[in-house]
Amino acid sequence: MKAVILASGQGSRMGYRTKALIKLAGRRIIDRTIILLKPYISEFVFVVRADNDELEKYLEKHWKGEIKYRIVKNPVPERGNGYTFLLASQAVGNEKFVLTMSDHVYSKEFIQKAVKLRGLIGDFKPKYVDVNEATKVKVEGNRVKDIGKNLKEFDCLDTGFFVLDGRAFEAARRVAERKEIVELSDVIRELKPEVSDVSGEFWMDVDTPEDLKKAKKLLISLSVKGKGDGFISRHLNRKISTRISYFLVDYVTPNQSTILAFLVGIASAFLVFFNLPLAGIIYQFSSVLDGIDGEIARASLRTSRFGEWMDSVLDRYVDFSFLLAVALKCAHLEYSPALPMFALMGCVMVSYTTEKFKASYGKSAYSCIKGISYLPGKRDERIFAEMILSILKIPLAILAFIAVIGNLRVLLTLLLVFRSRKELESSV
Amino acid sequence: MKAVILASGQGSRMGYRTKALIKLAGRRIIDRTIILLKPYISEFVFVVRADNDELEKYLEKHWKGEIKYRIVKNPVPERGNGYTFLLASQAVGNEKFVLTMSDHVYSKEFIQKAVKLRGLIGDFKPKYVDVNEATKVKVEGNRVKDIGKNLKEFDCLDTGFFVLDGRAFEAARRVAERKEIVELSDVIRELKPEVSDVSGEFWMDVDTPEDLKKAKKLLISLSVKGKGDGFISRHLNRKISTRISYFLVDYVTPNQSTILAFLVGIASAFLVFFNLPLAGIIYQFSSVLDGIDGEIARASLRTSRFGEWMDSVLDRYVDFSFLLAVALKCAHLEYSPALPMFALMGCVMVSYTTEKFKASYGKSAYSCIKGISYLPGKRDERIFAEMILSILKIPLAILAFIAVIGNLRVLLTLLLVFRSRKELESSV
Repeated sequence: MKAVILASGQGSRMGYRTKALIKLAGRRIIDRTIILLKPYISEFVFVVRADNDELEKYLEKHWKGEIKYRIVKNPVPERGNGYTFLLASQAVGNEKFVLTMSDHVYSKEFIQKAVKLRGLIGDFKPKYVDVNEATKVKVEGNRVKDIGKNLKEFDCLDTGFFVLDGRAFEAARRVAERKEIVELSDVIRELKPEVSDVSGEFWMDVDTPEDLKKAKKLLISLSVKGKGDGFISRHLNRKISTRISYFLVDYVTPNQSTILAFLVGIASAFLVFFNLPLAGIIYQFSSVLDGIDGEIARASLRTSRFGEWMDSVLDRYVDFSFLLAVALKCAHLEYSPALPMFALMGCVMVSYTTEKFKASYGKSAYSCIKGISYLPGKRDERIFAEMILSILKIPLAILAFIAVIGNLRVLLTLLLVFRSRKELESSV
Repeated sequence: MKAVILASGQGSRMGYRTKALIKLAGRRIIDRTIILLKPYISEFVFVVRADNDELEKYLEKHWKGEIKYRIVKNPVPERGNGYTFLLASQAVGNEKFVLTMSDHVYSKEFIQKAVKLRGLIGDFKPKYVDVNEATKVKVEGNRVKDIGKNLKEFDCLDTGFFVLDGRAFEAARRVAERKEIVELSDVIRELKPEVSDVSGEFWMDVDTPEDLKKAKKLLISLSVKGKGDGFISRHLNRKISTRISYFLVDYVTPNQSTILAFLVGIASAFLVFFNLPLAGIIYQFSSVLDGIDGEIARASLRTSRFGEWMDSVLDRYVDFSFLLAVALKCAHLEYSPALPMFALMGCVMVSYTTEKFKASYGKSAYSCIKGISYLPGKRDERIFAEMILSILKIPLAILAFIAVIGNLRVLLTLLLVFRSRKELESSV
């Protein structure tokens, strides 16, 4: 399947910039579209303004050899984006193809659904866009009846994403014969394609600097994957981390932010020897920072298995360092080495049991066994409690608390997995 | 696809027992065949002796509702197994079907390959069977030319596994019209089916008590999956554990042997307080026992994800207990709590890094990154070293050794995964 990307707009409300090249949450808009569509597309056809070669140069520099693509130049962009679309006809032919706009942003889930649908991809329950500014669609019997920005009665919004075939070019040609300026909505009105529904998935067209900010905020907040999050993460850490991610996403890679959180965590362990309350607070701060790598990775389409793996391994060493420092700090109290060893074991094994579960079953324990989400003692919760106990200056209680809560959680996990072992075996 | 299982033999060399019901490495032969074929088969057709209803009763008790099957009774088993085969024709029809013998044993890998092939499934490089006793096949232009036990020139052995269609019944009918006793080899000689190759995979027909012992031994030794095995495991532990598995496989379930190894491990930790050298030896013995659950599980077709998960979690607690006991034993030496904590961390994290790797990448680190197999410090190697140091009665050295080797291995794993991160990302 080919994809036609219309990129002949002026970007008038964005200071006449090439909108496709605008950076949004760590990625240029055009890169997002290419990355997400790539798995489904055999060739990309970009229709650009003949008087602006920025996009062409960019693609040559960054995507040549990575994807198959073709540039079609539009010498008369003033004839409207329906005419821009018509110019792609020779490069595409009669088969099914995807049509989308170079200034539209979509989530991965949107694209995954949309490429399997047909016709105009409509949003029947818009959650993220400003309805006033959007192009509206009136549907009749599963087909477009009317389309336009100012429709009073409408059923869904036009997401700027279409799955069409050669008949769409014929419709565009008929309109171009009667009219000088051909908008895409004129073509759609002529074609009356079927309408498919992707309600609930994120999409936006970026027309103004305000749109850009809004899209960035939404991409960051949608990047929070709450599955392994505990109470503190949901109600405190994520509220802060998403705000930090908003500022960092354009400057920092996910792996860099993993290292940052690691270094802050190690620093908090050193601080234990000098100022326990402050150490606890910095440790809690490193726990907030720990959410950022995943947020940045998902928002900027830079998730990697290596990043996920390294993040987990380093988290374990941060927790180890803090417990070690606490154990050393109260070494003069001559307590048994059993205490810090039980604490360390509990702390590491909480993560071990769920990661080994995923290794054995191929699925997350949180999604397979409901009860596990309700067990207390996830990392965010433990660290928050360690901060409180640090502020209260009772280091031995930190070791005792982690020893009990960690190993108890492991024991309960064992029981929960044991209880569900038969359903689990047959479900995988 | 249907499957025809011929079960009209007398078991004369097995004391006239129903051979299909003989237990072999923890599973009756017929159960092995059913379990392994089940994923590919819509209906089983068992042709049994009319004068022996043992198999029928067994199937009714254990497999009714689990698989779709039909019993065909053979009132004249003395007419030979080619005639037995012919009796299945009505139940099967003309479509493609699997034909096999109720006294033949196959590995999972054999069945996986064979069901996708056609005709007589031949073994061109027999590794496991006694060629003198086997049925030989002469091949010409990809088809059977001749078949028999006493062929002087032959190309492969008949594995007793066939993928045929209705033409096989027609051939059997033609032979039955001319001959009173119809052997399956007569039918094959008449049919001249194509010959496919499964060389290298395990199969055996079980005619005598000696065959039974040999098959059991082979099933146990084939159940050793060496991927995560270290030097000590390969050269010492497995040599002992397979011998123990040979005796236990008919009496003990995999999960029971996991618990057994766990209890012996915990016992070794208690022993540390009374007799360190003995404790070390028992710890090493628990490490040998730790291999048995997997061997029994694979040999008796009882692998489970729960078993794999639980085994790993309990192993970690055994290692923890031993290190804890050693740490407590030398508590009077007033060393820093850092030592046992580093030891515990190293010990758990070696396993954590590889399990988390599998959770993130969906594949074993050992198969993805060659270097990891060569790193020293796997569990079998660590425990062996701990035994030596226990015998030498230097407990602090145990903690120091594990602290260094464990964390060093984690660091090297980090470097190896980091180095291969790009190939890994694109390969999954």
